[in-house]
Amino acid sequence: MPTITAFESSPDRGKGQARDMRVRWALEEVAAPYDVRLVSFADMKAPAHLALHPFGQIPTYEDGDLALFESGAIVLHIADRHAGLLPTEPHARARAIAWMFAALSTLEPPIVELGMAMLFERDKSWYAERLPMLQDRVRVKLGDLSRRLGDADWLDGAFSAGDLMMVTVLRRLNASGLLDEYPEIAAYVARGEARPAFRRAFEAQLAVFTGARLAP
Amino acid sequence: MPTITAFESSPDRGKGQARDMRVRWALEEVAAPYDVRLVSFADMKAPAHLALHPFGQIPTYEDGDLALFESGAIVLHIADRHAGLLPTEPHARARAIAWMFAALSTLEPPIVELGMAMLFERDKSWYAERLPMLQDRVRVKLGDLSRRLGDADWLDGAFSAGDLMMVTVLRRLNASGLLDEYPEIAAYVARGEARPAFRRAFEAQLAVFTGARLAP
Repeated sequence: MPTITAFESSPDRGKGQARDMRVRWALEEVAAPYDVRLVSFADMKAPAHLALHPFGQIPTYEDGDLALFESGAIVLHIADRHAGLLPTEPHARARAIAWMFAALSTLEPPIVELGMAMLFERDKSWYAERLPMLQDRVRVKLGDLSRRLGDADWLDGAFSAGDLMMVTVLRRLNASGLLDEYPEIAAYVARGEARPAFRRAFEAQLAVFTGARLAP
Repeated sequence: MPTITAFESSPDRGKGQARDMRVRWALEEVAAPYDVRLVSFADMKAPAHLALHPFGQIPTYEDGDLALFESGAIVLHIADRHAGLLPTEPHARARAIAWMFAALSTLEPPIVELGMAMLFERDKSWYAERLPMLQDRVRVKLGDLSRRLGDADWLDGAFSAGDLMMVTVLRRLNASGLLDEYPEIAAYVARGEARPAFRRAFEAQLAVFTGARLAP
């Protein structure tokens, strides 16, 4: 059974926006049991954790001799080893993986930049001038994504690891209000959140924050 | 033979920092011939290109019925189909893929943010105050990367697609001067640039800028 790491004390107070959520959700989609080791911010910068994760972050994934870091790589590894997260047809599989990269490489950077500014630059003299610029960078991507999605349920055929990554990245906009401007995308995120595997993963990470014990 | 897209008029004036460079390099490493279709900025936002790339960017990759976007996905697809870019041993393969994601997800965002500020915010009132903050975010990642690399030639055993992505991402720091602070990383980038496949890819993209015709 693999072991993943997650924040002992999540900065988002259980909103499920830390990157362990992606890995939990993937494991729930394929019905693979897993253990969680919680780490403090001090643990993350200690040698034992840096040996697993060179950048001192979460999540990590350990399974026997294999140790991985980067949520994208971990989700892809899980999708490679279990049915249910990637199509078996090679071209469809490659396209689903392209959506994983699009989520992490094209959507997440401007979304994180906006989120960081909202958290850490709110009291700066430039905040009022930079905020609309950062919002517009995200809007361009959301507009493109919305046009491609159209009235489809998922990005390319059936639900895949590409949708899983995209939904978790888009959820980082919850506090920004921007998703309200793109109802198709808000509905897409809601479809992801309604999946039973998402719910189980969400409850599991929330239980860490509330200190609840989940039924075994 | 696959066809990729690249800028008709590269904003970096042939420095090889556009994302087609990664795909060219990967194709050169595995000795796979390819065609290039050059696109203007207007072409990139036209329906024909948006059908290939929902976000209207380069590179794309077309091979028969398959159309892909995202440089990470394209390089992974090439690495899956040809020997030479990923280890065959499954655990080593998964770890090399983790380095691809680390390059795109952990290193590239703060590097691009710094580069964007240096290009577009130099005349803003806040530039002098924000610049050191952006530089320090990159330094944290370079410090972590440098510690992990140590005196090894490559990130995890033999050269892999993980190194290919990392070197192309780190090259985006060329104008920042930050690589000079990390001699091990500067030497790592130089090792990548010295590979014959890198040189061939670099010359090919430079020829687009200079208008030169390469020998067939």
